[in-house]
Amino acid sequence: MSDKKKKTGGLADVIAGESAICTVGKKGVGLTYYGYNIDDLAENTTFEEVAYLLYNGELPDRSELDGFKKRLKQKRGLPDDLKKVLEMIPKDTHPMDVMRTGCSMLGTLEPEGDFVNQMETAERLTAVFPSILFYWYRYHNDGTRIEAETDDDTIAGHILNLLHGKKPDELRQRSLDASLILYAEHEFNASTFTARTVASTLSDFHSAISGAIGALRGPLHGGANEAAYELITRYRTPDEAEKGLMKILETRDLVMGFGHRVYTVSDPRNPIIKGISKKLADAVGNEVLYPVSERIEKVMWREKNLFPNLDFYSASAYHFIGFPTSLFTPIFVISRITGWAAHVMEQRGNNRLIRPLADYTGPDIRTVEPIEQRSATEA
Amino acid sequence: MSDKKKKTGGLADVIAGESAICTVGKKGVGLTYYGYNIDDLAENTTFEEVAYLLYNGELPDRSELDGFKKRLKQKRGLPDDLKKVLEMIPKDTHPMDVMRTGCSMLGTLEPEGDFVNQMETAERLTAVFPSILFYWYRYHNDGTRIEAETDDDTIAGHILNLLHGKKPDELRQRSLDASLILYAEHEFNASTFTARTVASTLSDFHSAISGAIGALRGPLHGGANEAAYELITRYRTPDEAEKGLMKILETRDLVMGFGHRVYTVSDPRNPIIKGISKKLADAVGNEVLYPVSERIEKVMWREKNLFPNLDFYSASAYHFIGFPTSLFTPIFVISRITGWAAHVMEQRGNNRLIRPLADYTGPDIRTVEPIEQRSATEA
Repeated sequence: MSDKKKKTGGLADVIAGESAICTVGKKGVGLTYYGYNIDDLAENTTFEEVAYLLYNGELPDRSELDGFKKRLKQKRGLPDDLKKVLEMIPKDTHPMDVMRTGCSMLGTLEPEGDFVNQMETAERLTAVFPSILFYWYRYHNDGTRIEAETDDDTIAGHILNLLHGKKPDELRQRSLDASLILYAEHEFNASTFTARTVASTLSDFHSAISGAIGALRGPLHGGANEAAYELITRYRTPDEAEKGLMKILETRDLVMGFGHRVYTVSDPRNPIIKGISKKLADAVGNEVLYPVSERIEKVMWREKNLFPNLDFYSASAYHFIGFPTSLFTPIFVISRITGWAAHVMEQRGNNRLIRPLADYTGPDIRTVEPIEQRSATEA
Repeated sequence: MSDKKKKTGGLADVIAGESAICTVGKKGVGLTYYGYNIDDLAENTTFEEVAYLLYNGELPDRSELDGFKKRLKQKRGLPDDLKKVLEMIPKDTHPMDVMRTGCSMLGTLEPEGDFVNQMETAERLTAVFPSILFYWYRYHNDGTRIEAETDDDTIAGHILNLLHGKKPDELRQRSLDASLILYAEHEFNASTFTARTVASTLSDFHSAISGAIGALRGPLHGGANEAAYELITRYRTPDEAEKGLMKILETRDLVMGFGHRVYTVSDPRNPIIKGISKKLADAVGNEVLYPVSERIEKVMWREKNLFPNLDFYSASAYHFIGFPTSLFTPIFVISRITGWAAHVMEQRGNNRLIRPLADYTGPDIRTVEPIEQRSATEA
């Protein structure tokens, strides 16, 4: 840790604890969940298998998977009082505030209680988050009170059914499923580290997850895919995109969806989501967003040596699947709850309070003066 | 940082960033807020002056303080939809879940929007937290919908008026006021660090504070004063306390309200809160809790070399003031919002994403097997 990094904070390159769940950017390995490479998982498993893996450390066999999916299906329903709260949350609210409040309110209606209930709580949140999001969204946008307990076999299918009110097609469902696998877990990122810090005081599950949602909300974290979408939809052709991007780069460095704190050469999730975006573009017949995205990728590499991270092609992929932009980050929540929950349980299993120190830069010791002798501090 | 500490996590002794707000345990200084010693502040200022100090870096002069207090008074009211949510949160809910949900819901009704509104948001939360807590508490316990907008001059007076439904006496009010000063700020403790981590993604104020409330909820953090109260009320005499405590120490080490991650010799807040507890004990004529507490302090020092922290004598003091035990930690929130808010604003002022690394301890790379070839993982 160099002095400069110490001074600017951010815990960059600082090891904050042990974890058996995930490697990010480990030499020659890239991204793994419990030892399985992300490519392997995205190609050969489903999101439910990955969720099971994150919660149990091993992939399920058939009967374990069936049992897990059955429990998730049974846990989709919304308590009436939670529905009322979702109806009271205004239509123009940031959907991440809906997720945060929905999770927090659920914690009052269905408290975790003893930590022996943690796995049940993890499964409940995994199952119910799509219901929370789409109940609120469709109530305020379509004026319907949706039935959150669908009989869809998978979470991806359930999400698309709640969004569109009908059974989804195979390509969209499989694309979303793979995307949920890619977003599920990413070591000590800011939201996961928030969940672990909250859990380290031995607080409850809903507190840890509400905190994590709040962290993911920020544009430097989960909000990046929305910002990427905003960028790619500005341009009608690749040439226009190149011209526009060059202008942006003249005045500022930060283009959302590029680069990464931990990855230095590339994001191993990018080729996968890029392939998904391409397939979806072909299927829906959109000939603009994908080529525009590709050109932006090329220019960012040429000009800034920066590679796209998962968020960049997620933007077009999610658009093709049919999600309104404002729901991109909440979909991230619906996936990442699995990583958060795994980390909360791991933190509890070998807990130590997370409590760092600050480097003090404030005034020297001084004495309180009587108020009548103080001078105004405001400019 | 020793290897052992690295391995056990917790960021003990790790500097996570700069801060000008507070020193904790700095050699020869103890606890200061912006350079003012905690003794000096507790004796010579009011909680509103300290809140102003934390938000602005300087103590207010008379007209600044008057303006600040006037704004706080005007911000006590609860939106109708928040009242409805508080009514729906069950009576037996952990009051910290009420605070977390109240803060989160308020973020949907009154979003911060642009960061230029951060100071207004900080003042609003400082003013409204007592209203949230006591509206919920008295609705479910007394069946009344209280009027949250009292004309009390101070936050301490406002709290006691909301709790008892009448103007408080001078001793209780001044005791609570000093206690709020003691609890206001404490550098990079777990809840404040949570708030900063959330803020570091450039998320909104309500997300940062909801996360912090969730962290403070844990028994290793804010919950300690409740646990201390549970301990001191077990015994009727100091001798009984000594006997009981010796028995506890035979089987376990952890007694809540003693020792501290950062302080090694004593907690500079302890003599102040101890003095307050003594005065209140004399005033209410309670001859048990204070002597029992003193004996526990003595035995803990003799047997374990551990000193009481702020939480220990807060337990008896809060009881004498008239707070139900379950509200001890929410009162901590009503004070600590000032420290949290100051840290959120400081983090934003010189932001870097807080994103540490993990030391990987999981399985080596492996390949996904077809599901029919997997063996059961559950015991």
